[in-house]
Amino acid sequence: MERRSFVQGAGIAGVLAAGTAPAVVHAQANIRWRLTSGFPKALDTIYGAADTFAKKVKELSGGKFEISTHAAGELVPMPGLVDAVQNGTVEMGHTAPYYYFGKNDAFALGCAIPFGLNSRQMTAWQYDGNGLKLMREFYSNYGFISFPMGNTGAQMGGWYRKQIKTVADLKGLKFRVGGFAGKVTSRLGCVSQNIPGGEIYQALEKGTIDAAEWVGPYDDQKLGLNKVAPFYHYPGWWEGGPQLDLYVNQKAYDTLSAEYKAIIECAAAYAHTEMQAKYDARNPAALKQLVANGAKLVAFQKPVMDAAYKAAMDLYSEISASNPAFKKIYDDYSNFRRESNLWFRFTEARFDTFMQSAKL
Amino acid sequence: MERRSFVQGAGIAGVLAAGTAPAVVHAQANIRWRLTSGFPKALDTIYGAADTFAKKVKELSGGKFEISTHAAGELVPMPGLVDAVQNGTVEMGHTAPYYYFGKNDAFALGCAIPFGLNSRQMTAWQYDGNGLKLMREFYSNYGFISFPMGNTGAQMGGWYRKQIKTVADLKGLKFRVGGFAGKVTSRLGCVSQNIPGGEIYQALEKGTIDAAEWVGPYDDQKLGLNKVAPFYHYPGWWEGGPQLDLYVNQKAYDTLSAEYKAIIECAAAYAHTEMQAKYDARNPAALKQLVANGAKLVAFQKPVMDAAYKAAMDLYSEISASNPAFKKIYDDYSNFRRESNLWFRFTEARFDTFMQSAKL
Repeated sequence: MERRSFVQGAGIAGVLAAGTAPAVVHAQANIRWRLTSGFPKALDTIYGAADTFAKKVKELSGGKFEISTHAAGELVPMPGLVDAVQNGTVEMGHTAPYYYFGKNDAFALGCAIPFGLNSRQMTAWQYDGNGLKLMREFYSNYGFISFPMGNTGAQMGGWYRKQIKTVADLKGLKFRVGGFAGKVTSRLGCVSQNIPGGEIYQALEKGTIDAAEWVGPYDDQKLGLNKVAPFYHYPGWWEGGPQLDLYVNQKAYDTLSAEYKAIIECAAAYAHTEMQAKYDARNPAALKQLVANGAKLVAFQKPVMDAAYKAAMDLYSEISASNPAFKKIYDDYSNFRRESNLWFRFTEARFDTFMQSAKL
Repeated sequence: MERRSFVQGAGIAGVLAAGTAPAVVHAQANIRWRLTSGFPKALDTIYGAADTFAKKVKELSGGKFEISTHAAGELVPMPGLVDAVQNGTVEMGHTAPYYYFGKNDAFALGCAIPFGLNSRQMTAWQYDGNGLKLMREFYSNYGFISFPMGNTGAQMGGWYRKQIKTVADLKGLKFRVGGFAGKVTSRLGCVSQNIPGGEIYQALEKGTIDAAEWVGPYDDQKLGLNKVAPFYHYPGWWEGGPQLDLYVNQKAYDTLSAEYKAIIECAAAYAHTEMQAKYDARNPAALKQLVANGAKLVAFQKPVMDAAYKAAMDLYSEISASNPAFKKIYDDYSNFRRESNLWFRFTEARFDTFMQSAKL
């Protein structure tokens, strides 16, 4: 049986069902894999990273390694992505790991936790610190391997019908917030809830919710939230640098030649860098347009930030006390965060602060 | 004649000498190229990017595309790197473009100019703005194509025997400074000079020079300058995010299959991201050790920064008036810088400032 037709015909599920370690795919064999995204195509920067990745894999392999990309829900709904990659329903998934904190809070550490690492720090922790090693060790419990594939940078704090001036203003606030961050906003008194992006506008307009965070100017602009909730708070202290990950089913990955493994790694690296670049290049014009259309930019005041910070640190202590997987990773993560911020406060911060106040 | 032996035997110089457009190398042909770095091997992060690149190219090609890396001076001295890539003496060079401003000041825009883009902004300008397109258009005059391949992040402002308190303290200061930045420090009254890294310590110790800038804590630590010039000023306003570039001789590049071209692009992207990650992960510990060993961290005061800023902006106006290549790129660059800083001052800056002042 020709290798190619075996791999194509049986699919990874068939390979796994065979129950034995599959042989390695020849370098240069033709293969087709499927990638499910955790996002809709409308998020062209985030979903676009999966398309960029697939395009680069095809180019790098001379057209022999083809990956089809699928929006959330097309093959697998977003909440089922981890299971689908684990089970081999698809070979690959691209998502924000913190969505899956219900399985284990440690997922959030591979993406973003409130008052966590910023974008450069997260990449540094993954590429040259212990981050990638620790997260892969954790993910091995779910039968997949991870590759950093994108970051949005520090997100905005979302859209509010009324301005948040004090911590008391958060009490009872019906707040749409994604992922793990709801654990902290709930401790501050918010009624935290996760509703899909496409339903946010209507919920805010009707008053079903009082506030909603999404991403940042470039993505938020598409939802038009400035028309129904004008106060645009910042920073999104729960997402200082959320990383997207490519998850690859480990058994499928093990069938690949060293060449194809390198192709996945480097194509993901290209997409990782390009996604942050896209946000950085496109957010400025979107922010200007949002402000021109009525958005009121307001910083969260320090007492609000301080209360949120304390709630977050308390939460991490509590989780660490009962979850050894979280504790092991968080100990390294928090040490990296402390050391990194001690350094970034000097030359990086001083340079940026000067440039941000200069008449350019 | 077998394609492989032709390519290997003749080398690119031979191909170019033939005077006709060379045929495209087959996908999967075995080839060996040479890369000259503009740096010594002791700079393991910067030089290391070339090694990472070569390693990834080999992996991505299943061992068929091999690149040997060479320290500055081994094949070509650093100042001759652009000529060597242009002439096809080597197929590739990896360097800091601003070293070559003597050919045209526009080289500096592909790397760093005083009060320029920070690391993320530079990557965004190259990957999703007009930066890469404009720089490649300019570089085509020199017969090569560029790929972003590394960034150091905001550098430190260097080591000073006496503290710089006012603009007057810069008058007559014998200052070792690399690249294009000397044009601005000279306008501030410094006697600007470029001496090799290996000679800085002795020059400072003897008093031949009064101050020297190099890179940041991780690299500076190796030179031991804290022992002879204790005042460690920041920020390095002339290098807020210097990018390293991979230069590839265009005619050699044109011989490559689409697959090998993609391999160069993605291997460079991996090395690009890894180099910044290494600096970000390694600078914190180095800074701590330097301070423990006597380095006195002192910020440049605002009047000094303001005077430098004015001198830099005057310089760019003057160069733009007489150099259309510089003007075309700088117009786009400065527009991107203005818009980007308007955005970065909100959520990114507020998040970072909070984290840098938090008790972590």
